[in-house]
Amino acid sequence: MPNLKLVLEYAGTAYHGWQIQPGVPTIQGTLQRCLAIVLREPVVARGAARTDAGVHALGQVASVASSKEIDPRRLRRSLNAILPEDIAVREAQVVPDSFHARHSALGRIYRYTVSSGDHLSPFHRQFTAHTFHPLDVEAMDRAARSLVGTRDFSSFKAAGDLSDSPVKDLRSSRVTREGERGELVVYTVEATSFLQHMVRNIAGTLIEVGRGRILPDRVPEILEARDRRAAGPTAPAQGLMLVEVLYPDLARPGSG
Amino acid sequence: MPNLKLVLEYAGTAYHGWQIQPGVPTIQGTLQRCLAIVLREPVVARGAARTDAGVHALGQVASVASSKEIDPRRLRRSLNAILPEDIAVREAQVVPDSFHARHSALGRIYRYTVSSGDHLSPFHRQFTAHTFHPLDVEAMDRAARSLVGTRDFSSFKAAGDLSDSPVKDLRSSRVTREGERGELVVYTVEATSFLQHMVRNIAGTLIEVGRGRILPDRVPEILEARDRRAAGPTAPAQGLMLVEVLYPDLARPGSG
Repeated sequence: MPNLKLVLEYAGTAYHGWQIQPGVPTIQGTLQRCLAIVLREPVVARGAARTDAGVHALGQVASVASSKEIDPRRLRRSLNAILPEDIAVREAQVVPDSFHARHSALGRIYRYTVSSGDHLSPFHRQFTAHTFHPLDVEAMDRAARSLVGTRDFSSFKAAGDLSDSPVKDLRSSRVTREGERGELVVYTVEATSFLQHMVRNIAGTLIEVGRGRILPDRVPEILEARDRRAAGPTAPAQGLMLVEVLYPDLARPGSG
Repeated sequence: MPNLKLVLEYAGTAYHGWQIQPGVPTIQGTLQRCLAIVLREPVVARGAARTDAGVHALGQVASVASSKEIDPRRLRRSLNAILPEDIAVREAQVVPDSFHARHSALGRIYRYTVSSGDHLSPFHRQFTAHTFHPLDVEAMDRAARSLVGTRDFSSFKAAGDLSDSPVKDLRSSRVTREGERGELVVYTVEATSFLQHMVRNIAGTLIEVGRGRILPDRVPEILEARDRRAAGPTAPAQGLMLVEVLYPDLARPGSG
């Protein structure tokens, strides 16, 4: 019973998020349909993170248990040949049975990108949010860094979040300027795991900081309030990217 | 009679190139229609380069003569408000009457991007070509550099090219590896002007070099053959980007 680890890229624009739901296109549903064709058996693909509708991934990870013999290199090629253009398998690897995409993960890295200025470039449109206001990146970075640590993130939690605990450990939280002409402002954050909408709620708050509507020194107070109403708005899904899921080193029976 | 310089970005995917043609969407046609709305008079937008169908631009330049008083900052905002999402005006500037987007240009910089590997990332799909073959970037760069100079580029000229002379001056011609995981191979080239399809024909030849099907040392011979059949195939339009058009320093009556 081989256990498989897949690393996936996708543009989430056309999907109702990772998690399978009846009647709407989802990443998990599309992947499982293609896996069933290639493996000739129905399988479940367990994702490391439940990306929301419209959220993208450079490195989502899925684990798949199959009863079939698997050549990971061939499987990857076969999957990429039949997956739609907005989903791709970057790596496929046979892993020990104990591997589980979600439970084995040691951390997740997300990136939130916002373009600031008079217009949104046609080249960034699909993968960034946009604000007409200039952004003070230094103030945003100061606010972002103040969130690092093991803290109660209730102020940045979605109303419907069902997590056992609002306490999360932010290991890294930075804002930088990127893009050909510095027109992109990028928030990069790493933690073991996140609350629902947490990255987008932090990003929305940091954008308010960048616009000068929240002072960076107020962000620790917002955190301490443990009240969603204290923080800024939820930044739009299109700016969010799941960059990488971190695991302990795996024994490698085979990869491709 | 103010004369206007516009710097444009566009994703060329949905357009039949820059030049206006009846019955099909073009960049020039779309821009002129929006300019007519904003300026309330019909105008002609002269482009620095006639990008082909499907070719993109980060810095196409157009000059526009108008009889109206122009506030360039307001004009830019008004245009961006009504232009389709895949075209944007990055800069607008009132320039001396003598300025002509094409005739005043001192040089053009193009970039051709190809993604190499098992799959094409959903994030690069629209703006790069793709090859399943690994590419030897060092060999490609050696071949690219060998083209620098004032030379007869007949071997890289489209059949229908109507230029007076096939002699062009390549000032810079380089191949580099880029992208998050080095998965993109980028050819960057600068010259005063180019023959039709010249960059795509060079790129197609360099890709053959990267695949090992043409030795880099053969590229000078291909050039000397002055015969289109000696070179590689025309690389697809989607990988080509007009990066910048170079001009002498302009006096600045006003910009925005």
